[in-house]
Amino acid sequence: MPTTLNSQTITYEQLAKTIDHSLLRPELTEADVLAGCELANRYHVASVCVKPCHVRLARQTLADSDVAVGTVVGFPHGNSTVATKVFETQEAVAAGATEIDMVINLGALRSGQADYVHNEIRAVVKAAHPHAIVKVILENAYLTPAEKVLGCKLVEEAEADFVKTSTGFAPSGATVEDIALMRATVGAQVQVKAAHGVRTLDQLLAMIDAGATRAGATATAAILNEFKQRGGGRDG
Amino acid sequence: MPTTLNSQTITYEQLAKTIDHSLLRPELTEADVLAGCELANRYHVASVCVKPCHVRLARQTLADSDVAVGTVVGFPHGNSTVATKVFETQEAVAAGATEIDMVINLGALRSGQADYVHNEIRAVVKAAHPHAIVKVILENAYLTPAEKVLGCKLVEEAEADFVKTSTGFAPSGATVEDIALMRATVGAQVQVKAAHGVRTLDQLLAMIDAGATRAGATATAAILNEFKQRGGGRDG
Repeated sequence: MPTTLNSQTITYEQLAKTIDHSLLRPELTEADVLAGCELANRYHVASVCVKPCHVRLARQTLADSDVAVGTVVGFPHGNSTVATKVFETQEAVAAGATEIDMVINLGALRSGQADYVHNEIRAVVKAAHPHAIVKVILENAYLTPAEKVLGCKLVEEAEADFVKTSTGFAPSGATVEDIALMRATVGAQVQVKAAHGVRTLDQLLAMIDAGATRAGATATAAILNEFKQRGGGRDG
Repeated sequence: MPTTLNSQTITYEQLAKTIDHSLLRPELTEADVLAGCELANRYHVASVCVKPCHVRLARQTLADSDVAVGTVVGFPHGNSTVATKVFETQEAVAAGATEIDMVINLGALRSGQADYVHNEIRAVVKAAHPHAIVKVILENAYLTPAEKVLGCKLVEEAEADFVKTSTGFAPSGATVEDIALMRATVGAQVQVKAAHGVRTLDQLLAMIDAGATRAGATATAAILNEFKQRGGGRDG
């Protein structure tokens, strides 16, 4: 489990494998998705994160690649029913996704319905494992610190693989403080993913130093090119 | 079919029945939804539009009301698969929704895949009718005028009941120009719903004069109170 990454010693290959190249904007065309998959393959990132309707296309495009295909469930609002989230997960796994980024029911968490949130995460984990890992998006923009901590504990109890900060479509995204809080809350078997606002190499390295082992990014090429140009490591 | 509404002659009761009271923000709690349903009932609007996870709650709360319960499918990005959209529609109808606001696959429309979009609308319409009507959200913010026209034609060919401008979660929403374009494109059997940006009475009346017979609103109380205070009709 890569929980010991840090910005001083990380290699280019390790850094590339922290990145989920995000292809989630609602207006993306098929051509945009193909170009994104090709970029992801060229940079050998961890995965592409595509819309549910593009899982098969990404799977075909990346058939001979070391880049995983991930997709989203209940995205971005997290308001579909548990049954719909399970159905969407099963569909994604059947189409070849090996990573599932699900959004919790934010309203339920904010209404104090911890059991509901536990059960929906558990149901998606059961539908995904062992074929796909599950990253659980809390959408921190809408949560108090106590709700973030509760969310982390529910993710761990439901045996998901990652807890993730954000969808990229809320008013705010990942902060170093939130990554540190989430890392401190979950045990070593749960990894932390930063998303929304990781636009530069220094932002990515700061997230890694705070405890993230994955990050969603669209500026993948710029981030990795800068690492190469800089000769590795964190600035200053 | 109420296609002859206009701001000079519309009554309070007719105006209230143009409004779908929107309860879709991702962070809404159960208490927020209950309060919203009570407001909708007090003002006798056309419907509440709730998140899929709240259909049963809204149905119970509005059991003895003249306010319909509607929900959303593939919302707000429209990127779930056709099978997931159909599943979500079936679930919503079984839970008591009688209005379904679905989002088309924007990327498919923008990729020129008209058949895909026709088929997904048709599949949702088949899953919904005759128990629920279907409003189809084009999300005009991302479309060219030609794509808006194509979207309208696909909605009509798929025998949906309404074409709707927006989700409320894109960079822009309903405009008078778009309502007029959509009204001019579809036949009389398809109604037009304005959504996103209908925040005042005058905005709502302008949409009605342009051809809308429904509008999504959260400022329902303010809009209808102003109509009463003004003694009806459009300002100036």
